[in-house]
Amino acid sequence: MLKLPIIILNVKAYAESIGEKGLALAKACKEVSKDTGVEIAIAPQQVDLAWIAKQVEIPCFSQHVDAISPGSYTGFVSLEAIKSAGAVGTLLNHSEHPMKIIEIDKIIQRSNELDLLVVACTNNLSVTKAIAELSPYAIAVEPPELIGSGIPVSKADPEIVSNSVKAVKKIDNNIVVLCGAGISTGDDVRAAIELGAEGVLLASGVVKAKDPKKALLDLASF
Amino acid sequence: MLKLPIIILNVKAYAESIGEKGLALAKACKEVSKDTGVEIAIAPQQVDLAWIAKQVEIPCFSQHVDAISPGSYTGFVSLEAIKSAGAVGTLLNHSEHPMKIIEIDKIIQRSNELDLLVVACTNNLSVTKAIAELSPYAIAVEPPELIGSGIPVSKADPEIVSNSVKAVKKIDNNIVVLCGAGISTGDDVRAAIELGAEGVLLASGVVKAKDPKKALLDLASF
Amino acid sequence: MLKLPIIILNVKAYAESIGEKGLALAKACKEVSKDTGVEIAIAPQQVDLAWIAKQVEIPCFSQHVDAISPGSYTGFVSLEAIKSAGAVGTLLNHSEHPMKIIEIDKIIQRSNELDLLVVACTNNLSVTKAIAELSPYAIAVEPPELIGSGIPVSKADPEIVSNSVKAVKKIDNNIVVLCGAGISTGDDVRAAIELGAEGVLLASGVVKAKDPKKALLDLASF
Amino acid sequence: MLKLPIIILNVKAYAESIGEKGLALAKACKEVSKDTGVEIAIAPQQVDLAWIAKQVEIPCFSQHVDAISPGSYTGFVSLEAIKSAGAVGTLLNHSEHPMKIIEIDKIIQRSNELDLLVVACTNNLSVTKAIAELSPYAIAVEPPELIGSGIPVSKADPEIVSNSVKAVKKIDNNIVVLCGAGISTGDDVRAAIELGAEGVLLASGVVKAKDPKKALLDLASF
Repeated sequence: MLKLPIIILNVKAYAESIGEKGLALAKACKEVSKDTGVEIAIAPQQVDLAWIAKQVEIPCFSQHVDAISPGSYTGFVSLEAIKSAGAVGTLLNHSEHPMKIIEIDKIIQRSNELDLLVVACTNNLSVTKAIAELSPYAIAVEPPELIGSGIPVSKADPEIVSNSVKAVKKIDNNIVVLCGAGISTGDDVRAAIELGAEGVLLASGVVKAKDPKKALLDLASF
Repeated sequence: MLKLPIIILNVKAYAESIGEKGLALAKACKEVSKDTGVEIAIAPQQVDLAWIAKQVEIPCFSQHVDAISPGSYTGFVSLEAIKSAGAVGTLLNHSEHPMKIIEIDKIIQRSNELDLLVVACTNNLSVTKAIAELSPYAIAVEPPELIGSGIPVSKADPEIVSNSVKAVKKIDNNIVVLCGAGISTGDDVRAAIELGAEGVLLASGVVKAKDPKKALLDLASF
Repeated sequence: MLKLPIIILNVKAYAESIGEKGLALAKACKEVSKDTGVEIAIAPQQVDLAWIAKQVEIPCFSQHVDAISPGSYTGFVSLEAIKSAGAVGTLLNHSEHPMKIIEIDKIIQRSNELDLLVVACTNNLSVTKAIAELSPYAIAVEPPELIGSGIPVSKADPEIVSNSVKAVKKIDNNIVVLCGAGISTGDDVRAAIELGAEGVLLASGVVKAKDPKKALLDLASF
Repeated sequence: MLKLPIIILNVKAYAESIGEKGLALAKACKEVSKDTGVEIAIAPQQVDLAWIAKQVEIPCFSQHVDAISPGSYTGFVSLEAIKSAGAVGTLLNHSEHPMKIIEIDKIIQRSNELDLLVVACTNNLSVTKAIAELSPYAIAVEPPELIGSGIPVSKADPEIVSNSVKAVKKIDNNIVVLCGAGISTGDDVRAAIELGAEGVLLASGVVKAKDPKKALLDLASF
């Protein structure tokens, strides 16, 4: 199991996280995790997943999977494939990659059979509650208007974090609640944790930082 | 440039091509290519692309890319990412993964700037001609009713192969024409070549074979 | 408000419900409703919606709306457009037309502002509970394997009906629970009601019947 | 057959074209057409199609159809349904509603069997040539950056119009070439015709005009 609170770094499809740059980000996560004792996971670019997961000993997530079983589905990604690649789970339903509810449900059910962790993203309180009914490993609350803004959700809209935590735990106490959008400093992480979140999901704050390792060190100093 | 005629193995999302099994398939392609002198390329599962391309010295294709530039597109795959992963190009518009025409056009245009090869799949003569106008590196003609059937297109519908070759070359003589669907033996490959194709795209005939290397050797004996 | 229990006839895109045939179905619904006192609503083919809703005085539903506001969205359908067309609401997320969860959420929120009724379809208990958190007017539980089967859900899987009713009412007591899939007789409707459903959603049982009016009369005789 | 040059008014999903407002626009098209002798067609909002087409005697187009045959496809629109609704054809692949190439091909093929006219939209020269290979009734060239801009394509980029006409006619001389994007006056229409276009496709220039009928009269005065 993952240690909480956790920092999950979604490197998206940024130019700054392709190939060797993505590998360097994963290694920075590992070093900072080792130095600080804080659990840090990474979601590499899709085509780099096995390559990075097999050589950097931190938890790796896929950024997305498709609602397929292994079979004749050219170009699609199954849970079985990401597990074999070395991932511990997958992000799902990011606001940049919204999914059909029956697909989310199918993937979460299958993830349980495969011992994979689904971190489902949500954009508001009602969708958060809806996805809580599907019992994913974690829900990452990310108001889309704050993504990439540098304005941390824990400051811009603290109530959405605390209300989400309350609502999710009431539906299923086992679901981990993360918060995302605008997180870039240890202060932001601490604020999120004080509001009840058990970790953060972030992207540009590290990937686009001049010194990603320094940014990670700051984040892990909550 | 790739040497023609070429055999491209699309391993799809089959259980038989995940992880180590996909790596073994790539190594079999390499050995058979070395032994026979026939160019053999592979399209690994998406999350295994960099991992396989970086360790097996044969041409690797992505099975799919999205019509994005590098950026904040969680879970999507750019041409830049597959290039960095070590791919020489990508399959596109497989009948299992049909795409919007403006996306195909955008990706082909960008592939030229990046020196990546697009192998666009088509399902009939009119779509073949339409995509020929977009000038991809290659067009793979695959009547969907024959995919996975074991009935080679070169026997079931030889005219679609010869007519596609004529139509494509008339529009753009530089486009390579492959044929797919139902190919599983060297005889099938030879028949395709006699009809004017410059290679084949296949999947289950090798991936699902009891002895994939033997199947590849047969295919390469055209 | 609609009177419960209600029968909602989804005419889908069947050849038997295009144009004048769809109008005849709507008129049959009206006559049977008048004769029996049972509320019967219809969801006409999309392009016939205004034409039928403006001339037959029964509740009409759209079969689908898109998650758009009025604007430059060629070929898409807004809630505002169906309201003006005379619809009382819309079906949503039918298993033949699955939708993204953020779209379903957005449409339900907007439907409340416009006094339109969303009947959201679900395929199993977990998705039913998830959508209940979004508080639509109604949820229609339709196990996809029974749709068009002639085997009524109320007999094949009575527990999914009763469990759905319990689960939905626990989340939001105001949500109407309908059941669908395989319903074709008054006995099926009665069984559904005894299991706690407040109506049925059906299609082929009437649209494909030799005598749709007779089929409706049987359905309304629960 | 439609008389050329033709003006096709796409009313999109604008608030200004819902219901009675859309009907008034159709009536304005009819009056201006009658007064000027210029063929003017309209593409009403999807749910208003039958209602408007059955009461206003001008050619009506659907704004979109799906690549389905009549059947169990809740919320989707078939060519058969729009024909019965009174449409003469459909717009397709608008930049706001891009489609898969195999769907465009399938719909065009079926439209020929049903004597329906497909007006396929394209965004640049390569896509124009690609779609010309599918032989639709007409191609409407609309550089997306000019849509809704008020800057007529005939002035901003005259070469795309003349080059499109040449390229299309070379592939299939029977295809009608329209131009769109930014058209709002009779001068714009005349410029388009002088560049070889046989009509225009426009939207906001009329729908958002203070006096749509006056705008139509100006357009028809080319």
